[in-house]
This record gives sequence, structure tokens and C-alpha cells, in this order.
Amino acid sequence: MRKTAILGIGQTPVGEHWKLSLRDLAGQAILEALNDARRDSADGIFIGNMLSGMLAGQENLGSLIADWTGLRGKEAYKVEAACSSGAAALRVALMAVASGEMDCALVIGVEKMTETKGVDTTAALASAADADYEAAQGISFVALNALVMQRYLHEFGWKHTDFAQFSINAHANALDNPYARLHEAISETDYKKSRMVAEPINLLDASPIGDGAAALVIVPFDDQSSTDQRLVSIAGSASATDTLALHDRSELLWLSAAEKSARKAYEQAGIEPYDVDIFELHDAFSIMSALSLEACGFIGRGQAPRLAIEGEILPSGKIPICTRGGLKARGHPVGATGVYQIVEVVQQLRGEAGTTQVDGARIGMAQNIGGSGATIITHVLKMGDSR
Amino acid sequence: MRKTAILGIGQTPVGEHWKLSLRDLAGQAILEALNDARRDSADGIFIGNMLSGMLAGQENLGSLIADWTGLRGKEAYKVEAACSSGAAALRVALMAVASGEMDCALVIGVEKMTETKGVDTTAALASAADADYEAAQGISFVALNALVMQRYLHEFGWKHTDFAQFSINAHANALDNPYARLHEAISETDYKKSRMVAEPINLLDASPIGDGAAALVIVPFDDQSSTDQRLVSIAGSASATDTLALHDRSELLWLSAAEKSARKAYEQAGIEPYDVDIFELHDAFSIMSALSLEACGFIGRGQAPRLAIEGEILPSGKIPICTRGGLKARGHPVGATGVYQIVEVVQQLRGEAGTTQVDGARIGMAQNIGGSGATIITHVLKMGDSR
Repeated sequence: MRKTAILGIGQTPVGEHWKLSLRDLAGQAILEALNDARRDSADGIFIGNMLSGMLAGQENLGSLIADWTGLRGKEAYKVEAACSSGAAALRVALMAVASGEMDCALVIGVEKMTETKGVDTTAALASAADADYEAAQGISFVALNALVMQRYLHEFGWKHTDFAQFSINAHANALDNPYARLHEAISETDYKKSRMVAEPINLLDASPIGDGAAALVIVPFDDQSSTDQRLVSIAGSASATDTLALHDRSELLWLSAAEKSARKAYEQAGIEPYDVDIFELHDAFSIMSALSLEACGFIGRGQAPRLAIEGEILPSGKIPICTRGGLKARGHPVGATGVYQIVEVVQQLRGEAGTTQVDGARIGMAQNIGGSGATIITHVLKMGDSR
Repeated sequence: MRKTAILGIGQTPVGEHWKLSLRDLAGQAILEALNDARRDSADGIFIGNMLSGMLAGQENLGSLIADWTGLRGKEAYKVEAACSSGAAALRVALMAVASGEMDCALVIGVEKMTETKGVDTTAALASAADADYEAAQGISFVALNALVMQRYLHEFGWKHTDFAQFSINAHANALDNPYARLHEAISETDYKKSRMVAEPINLLDASPIGDGAAALVIVPFDDQSSTDQRLVSIAGSASATDTLALHDRSELLWLSAAEKSARKAYEQAGIEPYDVDIFELHDAFSIMSALSLEACGFIGRGQAPRLAIEGEILPSGKIPICTRGGLKARGHPVGATGVYQIVEVVQQLRGEAGTTQVDGARIGMAQNIGGSGATIITHVLKMGDSR
């Protein structure tokens, strides 16, 4: 199996792009990634997207995007795993390059959520949960996460405000990221006063939806371009599933798919959690930041709010998270999010992360979650050949 | 790159399965395929499906189906390429096994179309076309194909009835296939009298939708099980795209993605068209049978109806097609169809095709089409090690 690496990255700002369709957004990010990689083509495209059918009445994105980006004729598919579709598309691109089926694969995560042709966006997002047993009861996706957070507060004795620093850190880190949706510093008072969405999750616990696209150029690590100082190797890549419905879990507060995929990725990369310099985690809701940090071994069970309170998640802390704003402030265009996370880790490893650059970052991790922990994909990236 | 093979197959009948949900259908086919392969697990699942979001309000099928089939924890995603989603899922499974990421991968194609929670099925199918430039005009998918057929009749001087034998052959071949949706022999008179759908496409030119699932177990060709007499090797596997919108094509009557993917698959398998013993093609509409036969090199441009009229597409002919009923009579549960095709080729190569068994079939081909020729995936299978 060939080892793989990331040669180019591209992204659009996350926002309300009324004048840009799915193909426009995808095209912009792909063009930027190809330029960054100094390539003008690729052997195929893997598209992370969740909602194009329900919201835009558009499937068959493979052919659409290949044609639009000048790659007419090339192999191209959509890969879907709810909000982890972006990292799932990277998994498949990695297999394509590792197997030798392709020598250069594009990954594009794209989602357009602020404009819909039919289904309401909240209803469409509920398709990430179990349609027959959860969504059929009328529960929304944020309500499912609220059940989890409520139980966490009860079980471990934390107060809701103990989660404030997760959101404050994310908003602060987005201020200098031109691609972020929200550029607005928030205080603990703002957090406390924020409108309730589904108790105990308030507006500042929840990530905003958005339109956006992010892209990667994947090549073999021994590609001729590997002399490129900026080549980032994919040192670990693993995915696991859990039950889709929350009521089927034996442990509601433990992300077993995060633990499984992270352990495997650590092993592949030959590292331990303390080796990770930055961690782009899936903070769709602040409770998910906590559960992810615990399942990946950064702190004991039920203790994650302490990392936030003690400042260890800041760019200057022990385990910086959401260094470019995270889902909370960069925004969460669901099928694109997993690719944005990888782009941001690459920026950190290249030393291109501006005022939130983590000093000497050499090993970065990204974790993308689909459903309430149902599909979890973990990647470990290393700068150059530092495996 | 490791060579790959098909160790097990499974399928449900295509029909109106009012009592079976997506997970039930997928589960039945997967269980049958695992039993057939004498395995009780796999390393991951790739799901061909197009419409679960729009019709059932269910995405994140990976985690849903992995859990339901006793594979909780394993990696699993949905792969979408409109009506070619099934073969696209096989392409990805092949990459997973070829790369060494997995030693055993399940492919499941599943679709439930006869019951919908929201969008009308015809509207949902239009998402296989260009939503912004085609579907927005109100044109349905069958109407797009009608434009193509109309042009073909005009260009090459055939009469509509010259296509009758495509449908007659498909219906005849389905009579003995217990998994087929339609068990009804038709005559040329039936064809002529059939109700018009979108001129010149009548009801007997068009394949019926349906609910169904088909599954494959993919392993390395040098797997210990390769001593199994029934192991079928994947000798050729290739995919190509064309423009999504018909108006962007320079040649409306030439499936360039069929030609590209077939040529590549022939080359990989070391064969020529005349080596192919059976061909499961994508007869969503009878015109597509003609275009596929031409683009894959079985007959000259504009001449395909001759193959049908002269009986060369029958099980006893030079290039037998739709040997188990094809999309026309087995039925077309869109995201599952590409996997049904592979299952049927494997049946032929194993000599398990009943009264439509093609004598001495050693090399079989399947071609799955998404959109009106926008995504085309071609596979060449060989019995045992006959490469």
C-alpha cells in the first residue's frame, strides 16, 4: 500500500452564498487547491456532500463537478456519511491513491444549506439520525445532542457555564480566519445570556450552518513533488461506526467510534495523544468537543470541561482545538466540514495559520463526526516526512 | 495493487416491499452474500444508494446498515452516482481491498422507491439530471431519454418498432428469474400497443422502478478462498464521466463515457469485445441498450437495432444481454441496479443462471449508467483464474 500525502489545499469562505451554486462553490475550492498544488488536473474526484438531493434537487454531483472544473471524463462520485461526508471522501481518495487506481485524487467537500428548493434544512439534517426510530418522533438533531449534554451535566456534576470556554475559544480563533463565517468575539456573559435552542444547548453551544466548499489534492507520498517543503503526509487514517440511534448505545456519554478510529490512527502514525500539537475536532455542539477530547485520550472521562476552563484548548495550551474557529465559528456546511478541518490542520503544519498559529506544530489531528457519534473518522497528519 | 475477486453474492426480489424498510432489504441481501461466501463478517461496507434522503428522509446509511447487519463498529459509507451508484460502490470497495485497507469488503446496493415520505419519485429521479439547467425546465428523466431516442430514429432511419426485440428479450429472460419484478412475456403486438410515456418512449421501452437490494463480498484474488471453484475475478474495472446536461454534449448519440470505461476495462482484462460471453447493460430505456452496445464496440454506430432484430442479443446469440431480465424486467431500484448486474454476471459465470444460462460463459461484462450517460462504470468479470 502506497503512503499518501496532501499536496494542495483550497477553500471558499463559509457564509450565505446567494450568488454561488453547488458547482460554483466546488469549482472555486478545487481551482484553489490545484493552484496550490501547482497541478492542472487529477485522475478523479471524491465529493463529500450530504444534502444536495434534499436541498438542491441535485444528485450525480460527480459528473457535474468533474465537468465544471475542467475534468470532464474523469471518474467522480459523491461519498455520504452525514456530517462526516468530508472525511469519508478523503478516506476513499486515500484508498484510490494507495491502491494505485489513481496517482492524483481530488477531494472536495461542498454543501449549500442556506437556500433550499424543498425540504427545510433542519428536517433535512434530521436524516443524519435514525429516520424510523428517532426522526419519526419529531426530534431534531440539536434535540438529540441536548439529551446527551443534559445527561453529561447530570452524570458528572458540571454546570452549563463550564462549557463556555469551548465557544469563546472557537470564536476568538476565527477572528483572524478570512474563511470563517463568524467574526465576533464572545464573552462568558454573552454565553450565559444566549438564547436557548434545546435545553441545555443554547445558541452559543451550537455551530451555524452555512454554504461552503473545501478541497484537497492527494498524491502518493513518494510522488516527485515530495521534495516540496509543504508536503503533508497522511500518517494515520481510520474510521469506525457506532449505532445510529442513541437509544441503542450501551454508553450514551462515550464516543466508541472516536476511541476506535483515534486508537487506530495513533497506531498507524506511531504516536500517542500527547504527541498531537493541534486537534481540529467536531464541535457541532460544545458537548461534542468534550466527548471527543475524552474518547481520544486527552483527558479522563467526564473531565473535559477542565481542559477548557484551564485554557489548555487555546492555541497556547496543551491541546489546542478549533484553531481556525472550529465548526462553531468557521461554520458547519455539513458535508464540507471534514475537508475544512483537514485544510486547517495543513495550514497549521505549514505555519500558515496567522495569529492563531501554534508554535512548532508538526503533528495535527482532525476528527469528523456523522450523526450523534454514529460515524467517526480520524486523521493524523505530519509535516513532511516526520513519520 | 492487489487483484480482487467476488466471493459471495446475495439479492432480494425486486418489487413493492411494503413491509421491508431500507435496512431490512439491505440486511437480507448482505446476509445472503455472507452465507454464500461462507463468511460471518467483513472489514467494511460500501453502500450504493441514490434516493434514501429524498424518499425516506434517511442519510448516514453506513452506520445504519453496519449496525443492522451485525457489523457495528466497521467502516461504512454511502456512495452516490445516480443510477450508477451500485457500480460506484463496487469501485470503492475494490479500491479498499486493492489498497490493503481492507481484506474483505461488502458492497450493498439498496433502494426503496415505491413508498416515499416526501418528494415524488419522478421528481427525485430528476436529480440525476442537471437541476439548474435541465430539471428546472420541468423535464423529467424519461423525457430526456425521449429526446435522445427521437434523435436516434431521425438520424439513423430506424422505426420505433425496430426496438421491440430489446424489450421482448428482457421480459423473456426474466420469466425464470425469481428475483425479477416482472414475470410476463410480451409480444411485438404488446410493444406496439403499449401506452406512450414520452414520445417515442412507451411503457415497454421503460424499466420499472422498484424496491430491492443486492450484495457482493469482495476479497483479494489471492485470498485463501481462491481455491474456491466459484471465485470470480474482477479482471477489468473502470469509470468515466461525461457532461451532466445533454445540451453540453458534442455528440448526443454517442456514450463517450461508455466507450472510455469499456476500453479501459477491456485493456485491463486483456480482451476484445468479441471475447465477452454475456453483457448486462443498463437498459433503463431501450435506446440506452442500443447506445451502450455501439459505444462498447459490439456493432457500428447507428446499427444496434440490427443485433436485436437478428436475435444476437438472446442467450443463444453473439452478445447475450439482459440475461436475467435486465432493468426492463428484473426492475430498476436505481442505486441497487449496478450491484444486481454484477450478481447476475456472477450467476452466469458460475453456471447458475437456470433456463437462460449462456453455455460456456467464462467472461462477463456489466455496465451501469448514472444520468443520461453522465457517469458510466464498466466491469469485466472472469471465472476463476482465467485471466
